[in-house]
Amino acid sequence: MAQPVDELLAGLPLVDHHCHGVVAADLDRTGFESLLTEAEVWPGSGVSPFDTPVGVAVRRHCAPLLDLPRHATPEEYLARRAELGAHEVNRRFLAAAGAAALLVDTGYAPERLTAPAELAGPAGAAAYEVVRLESVAEAVAAEGGTTAAGYGAAVRAAAEDAARRPGVVAVKSVAAYRTGFALDPARPSDAEVARAAAGLLARPGARLADPVLVRHLLWTAVELGLPLQLHTGFGDADLRLDHADPALLTDWLRRTAGTVPVMLLHCWPYQRQAAYLAAVFERVYLDVGLTLHHVGPARAAAVLAEALEITPFRKLLYSSDAYGLAEFHHLGAVAFRRGMAELLGERVAADDLSPADAERIARWTGRDNALRVYGITDPVDHADHTGHTDHAGHTERAPAGPAASVPPMEND
Amino acid sequence: MAQPVDELLAGLPLVDHHCHGVVAADLDRTGFESLLTEAEVWPGSGVSPFDTPVGVAVRRHCAPLLDLPRHATPEEYLARRAELGAHEVNRRFLAAAGAAALLVDTGYAPERLTAPAELAGPAGAAAYEVVRLESVAEAVAAEGGTTAAGYGAAVRAAAEDAARRPGVVAVKSVAAYRTGFALDPARPSDAEVARAAAGLLARPGARLADPVLVRHLLWTAVELGLPLQLHTGFGDADLRLDHADPALLTDWLRRTAGTVPVMLLHCWPYQRQAAYLAAVFERVYLDVGLTLHHVGPARAAAVLAEALEITPFRKLLYSSDAYGLAEFHHLGAVAFRRGMAELLGERVAADDLSPADAERIARWTGRDNALRVYGITDPVDHADHTGHTDHAGHTERAPAGPAASVPPMEND
Amino acid sequence: MAQPVDELLAGLPLVDHHCHGVVAADLDRTGFESLLTEAEVWPGSGVSPFDTPVGVAVRRHCAPLLDLPRHATPEEYLARRAELGAHEVNRRFLAAAGAAALLVDTGYAPERLTAPAELAGPAGAAAYEVVRLESVAEAVAAEGGTTAAGYGAAVRAAAEDAARRPGVVAVKSVAAYRTGFALDPARPSDAEVARAAAGLLARPGARLADPVLVRHLLWTAVELGLPLQLHTGFGDADLRLDHADPALLTDWLRRTAGTVPVMLLHCWPYQRQAAYLAAVFERVYLDVGLTLHHVGPARAAAVLAEALEITPFRKLLYSSDAYGLAEFHHLGAVAFRRGMAELLGERVAADDLSPADAERIARWTGRDNALRVYGITDPVDHADHTGHTDHAGHTERAPAGPAASVPPMEND
Repeated sequence: MAQPVDELLAGLPLVDHHCHGVVAADLDRTGFESLLTEAEVWPGSGVSPFDTPVGVAVRRHCAPLLDLPRHATPEEYLARRAELGAHEVNRRFLAAAGAAALLVDTGYAPERLTAPAELAGPAGAAAYEVVRLESVAEAVAAEGGTTAAGYGAAVRAAAEDAARRPGVVAVKSVAAYRTGFALDPARPSDAEVARAAAGLLARPGARLADPVLVRHLLWTAVELGLPLQLHTGFGDADLRLDHADPALLTDWLRRTAGTVPVMLLHCWPYQRQAAYLAAVFERVYLDVGLTLHHVGPARAAAVLAEALEITPFRKLLYSSDAYGLAEFHHLGAVAFRRGMAELLGERVAADDLSPADAERIARWTGRDNALRVYGITDPVDHADHTGHTDHAGHTERAPAGPAASVPPMEND
Repeated sequence: MAQPVDELLAGLPLVDHHCHGVVAADLDRTGFESLLTEAEVWPGSGVSPFDTPVGVAVRRHCAPLLDLPRHATPEEYLARRAELGAHEVNRRFLAAAGAAALLVDTGYAPERLTAPAELAGPAGAAAYEVVRLESVAEAVAAEGGTTAAGYGAAVRAAAEDAARRPGVVAVKSVAAYRTGFALDPARPSDAEVARAAAGLLARPGARLADPVLVRHLLWTAVELGLPLQLHTGFGDADLRLDHADPALLTDWLRRTAGTVPVMLLHCWPYQRQAAYLAAVFERVYLDVGLTLHHVGPARAAAVLAEALEITPFRKLLYSSDAYGLAEFHHLGAVAFRRGMAELLGERVAADDLSPADAERIARWTGRDNALRVYGITDPVDHADHTGHTDHAGHTERAPAGPAASVPPMEND
Repeated sequence: MAQPVDELLAGLPLVDHHCHGVVAADLDRTGFESLLTEAEVWPGSGVSPFDTPVGVAVRRHCAPLLDLPRHATPEEYLARRAELGAHEVNRRFLAAAGAAALLVDTGYAPERLTAPAELAGPAGAAAYEVVRLESVAEAVAAEGGTTAAGYGAAVRAAAEDAARRPGVVAVKSVAAYRTGFALDPARPSDAEVARAAAGLLARPGARLADPVLVRHLLWTAVELGLPLQLHTGFGDADLRLDHADPALLTDWLRRTAGTVPVMLLHCWPYQRQAAYLAAVFERVYLDVGLTLHHVGPARAAAVLAEALEITPFRKLLYSSDAYGLAEFHHLGAVAFRRGMAELLGERVAADDLSPADAERIARWTGRDNALRVYGITDPVDHADHTGHTDHAGHTERAPAGPAASVPPMEND
C-alpha cells in the first residue's frame, strides 16, 4: 500500500539543487523588503514588496514559524523577526525547509551571505557548492596576471581549480544576464577569445558581458565535465526576459549533446519551452525554482503542471533559488511539496496515475533526480531509496559529472 | 469581519482605466457582428462572430439585461436589441457595468462613437480622457502648418495642448500596431526626427509608422509627464502579435525608469511577461482588458491568475477596453468581478489569503490603483476608502502624472 | 433535451484531420520506446520514455484494451503487446479510437508505416491523404529530370499530380522544421527559385531547406487550392521551437488571406498565438494534436482551454498526429473526448454555456469543422448532421479546397 503522496511529500528530505546563502545579520525593514523582491525597494511609491504574492505567502506561511498568527501584518512580522534575531530566525526556517542537501551558488555577493557550511548546519543538510563561471573569469581578469592571449587557458585552469575544491558538484553561468541566449552556438576560436579578452583586461573590474567571452565560458563548462546550471527566465530588473527564453539555447544544446548535463533554472514564464528541451535532449533538466516562492504555494501547482506537461519525470528537479532570506528556503519547500502533492494527488484521485507512480515521481523530482545528476549519495536518508524502481530497464550508467560519489562539504 | 470578497466585488464601483465610446446608432446584424470580433466579418464563411467565446458570453451575460432568457439565440438577441433601440440598450449596459469612472481613449474613429461625457452619463460615472499620441501627430502632419524641422516641436506643443484639455489624465500610444516594440530604445535626435518627418509630411494623410517618429512619440510622452498607456498583445488583424510582446520594451523601460507611469494594456497572451515588468520596474502597471470580454467570464479567472502570479497587487488595474458595443462595458466588468472573486475566494477558502487581504486586493485592482496612478479622486464613493490600509509603511508620495487631483469632464 | 456533452463526446465519430500510419511489424522494447518519445531513446541514461506523461497515459489508458489492469508495468505491457501481435494490437486501438475519417500524412518514412487504407480498415474509418510538399519537391529533385530553371514548374506539376490522386484532400508543409517561419512573406521570383534550385539539384538526395525553396512550396500550396496543413510548435529534437511559433507566419497569412485554408497543427506551447491567428484571419484553423497524447488526458482540458480562449468554435479541429503507435490514435481520441467534455461540462454546470451550445461545439470541433474545411461528407453518420444549426445566418459557401465532395480512398 503506497503512502498518500501528500504525506510522502510533506516528509521527504529534499535536495535543493540551487540555492544561495542567507544574510546572517539582522535586517531592518528596508533591508528585509529589498530581499523580498526581485526589484529595488521603491521608497515613497506606495508599492510595498509585502503587497505581492510572495509577501502574502511570507505572512501566511512563514509567520507561524515565528510564533505569529497566520497573515500577521508586516509590522508584526518584522518586529518579531527583530526580536528573535537573524540567527534564530534563519535556524527555524532552514530547519523547517527539510532539505537533505543544499547545492549553494557562491558566486553572487557572497560576503553578505552565509557560506555553504553555515547554511547547511542549521538546515541539518549536507552542503555542496556550485561555482559561478563568470565570477571565476572576472577574478582572473581582476588579478591581472594574464595576457589576452593567455586568458582562455587561465580561465580554464582557474575553473578547473575551483571545480576540484571539496564539495563542488556543478558550475553555473549567468549568460542570461550578460548577453542572453541568442548567441552563436559555435565554440569561439582561441584568437576570438584573445581579442575579446583584451577588451576585458583593459577595463579593470569590468563585468564580463562580451558575447565571445560568455560563449567561451559555456564551452569551458563542457570541458570541465560537471553539470552546468543556467539561469533562464525570471530574475531581476537587470534582465531582458525574452533573451532568457531557454528555447534560444537549442542550437547550442544540439552541438553539445552527449556532454555535460544542462540544468535549466527557474524557466518561468518559459517552463513549457524548457520542458520541450528536457523532453528531446538527453542531458537537459529543469526546475521552477525562484518562481515557486514568488508565485507562492497558492499558484505552485499551476506552474508545476505546465512544467510537467511533457517533461520526463526524471528531468524535473527541486530548487528554491532562495537568496538572502531564510524564509525563501522554507517557502520554496512548502510550495514544492504542496504543489506536487496537489498535482499528483488529483491525478491519483482521478485514477490517471497509480499511487505507486505518484510516489515514485515525488521522490524523483524532490530528491533522487538531483542525486543522480550530481553524482552525490543521499546524505540523510539512504533507507528511503529502497523502494525505488524505474522503468528504464537498462543497466544505468552514471550520468556525466563527478566520476564518483562526492562527499559533502564540512558541515558543523 | 470582512465582507465576503465576491459580494464586495459585485458592488465595487470600478475605475475602467481604458475604454472607448459606444456606437450611438442602431446596428444591423453585420454592424453588430463587426463590432463583436477583432476580425472582419466574414460573409458566407459559415463562421459567425457569435460562435466564439465572446459571442457565447454576450448571449449568456448580456441577454438578461435585454429581458431575454440566458443563452438567447443571436436572432432573438438582435431583434430585441433593435426593438429597444441603441439608446436604451447602451443605457442599460453602461449602468449595469457599475463603473465610477471611465478613462476614454478618444483617438480611434471617434466620429462613430459617443464622446466621453455621453458615455459617462448613462454609466453614472465620471469621464476622463486619454489622448492618443499618434492621432495628435497625424493631425499635426495633416494640418500642413509645419516643416520637417519644426515637426518635433509642433507635435510636442500639440500634445501639451491636448494634455491640458479638461479631464485629460493620460496619453496613449499604439506603437504596437505601427512598428511593434523591437525599437531602438534611445531618444531620437532632432535631426533624425526631422528627416523622418519629411517622409510623413510628403504623404498627406499618411499613417504614422516610421520607427523614428514612433519613438519620438514615446519620448514625447516621457516629457509630458502623464501616465502613458500602451497597447500590448492581443488586438485586431492589423497587428504582429509577437512584436507586441511587452518584454520587447524592457530596454526602453530601463532608460525611462523614474519618469512616467507606463500602463501595459491587454497584454494577453504575454500577461506573464507584463507581470515581470510590473514586478521589477517601479512605474510599470498592467491590465488584461479586452481579453476579459473576449475570453469571457468562464475563463477570466484563469487569465487573471497568470497575470497576478508575480504582479504586485498595487500594479494590476481594471479596464474593459470596450469599443463600440456597450455590451463590452458590462461584460468586461462581469468578467473582472467574477474572475477576481473566484481567484481571491479560492485563496481565502484555502487560507492562503486572509479575508482582509482579499478585500484590499479587490479594492486596489478594481479601483484604487487607477485612482492613485492617474491622480484622480474617487468621484463616487469616497466613503469606501476609509477601510483602506497598505503595507508600504512610507509616507506615500503622489505618483507621477497630474500634479493635483483632476476634475472629471462635464457629465450630463 | 440535449444529450449530456460527455456522453455525446464519448460516442462522437471523430474526424482525425492529421495523423500518420502505424508500424505494422511487431516492436521490441527499443522499437516501442523510440516511438513513444519525440526524442531518441537514450540507452543507459536511466531516463525511460515510459517515465513521462505519455508513458503513464499509455499504461493507464491503453493497457485495459490489451486486457491488462490499469497502470500495468512497462514489462507487462510490452509482453502482452508481443503476445497479441502488432496486427491485433493495432486493430484494437484503431477501432477504439472511434474515428469516422482519417486524414493521413504520407510524407514521412511511409515505408515503415501502414498505408492510409490499411489504417482505415481496422479503424472502421474512411481514409483520405495529405500530401507533404517537401517530399514531392525532394522527389522531383532526386529524379533528376529537371533543370534549375525548370524546377519551379516541375514541382508545381508534381504537386498538382499528387493533389489529383484519389482521396487527397490537403497538402502539408514542414517549413517549421526546415527553416522556421521567420521567412520573407513574399512570393519568390522565378529567378530566385531557379538559383536556389541549382543548389538543391547539385546535391542529390539533399534535404530541401533553402528558405527560397521553402517559400516556393508555401506559395505553391496557395496555387493548388487545397487546405494547407502546417506543422507548428512542438515536435522532435530537429526543431527550433521558437522558430515554429505560428505568430511568425502573420505577414504571410496577411498576404495570402482569402486563398487556401491554413491549418495550424499542434501549436503547443503557442496555442494562444495560434488562437489569435484563427480569431483574426478568416482562413486560419488550429488543432492541438500531438500535444493531446503527450500531455495525456490528465492535462488535455487545460491545453484545450488555452487553445479555445479566443478561438472561434468553428476553427478548432481534432487531430491525433498519431505516428507509428496505434496507441496514439486511441490516446489522442481519449484525451480530446475527455478534455472537451471537462471543459464544456464545467461551463454547462456553471451555466456559462447552454447544453445545446456545448453539444454544437463538441460536434463542430470533433468532426464537422474538418468535414467543412476539407469538403468531405461524413462517411459514417450523416444522420447526425440533422440537428446542426449555426449562427452565421448567411448562405454558407463552400470553403476553399476541393470543389466538390471528395470520396474517400479505397478502404478494405
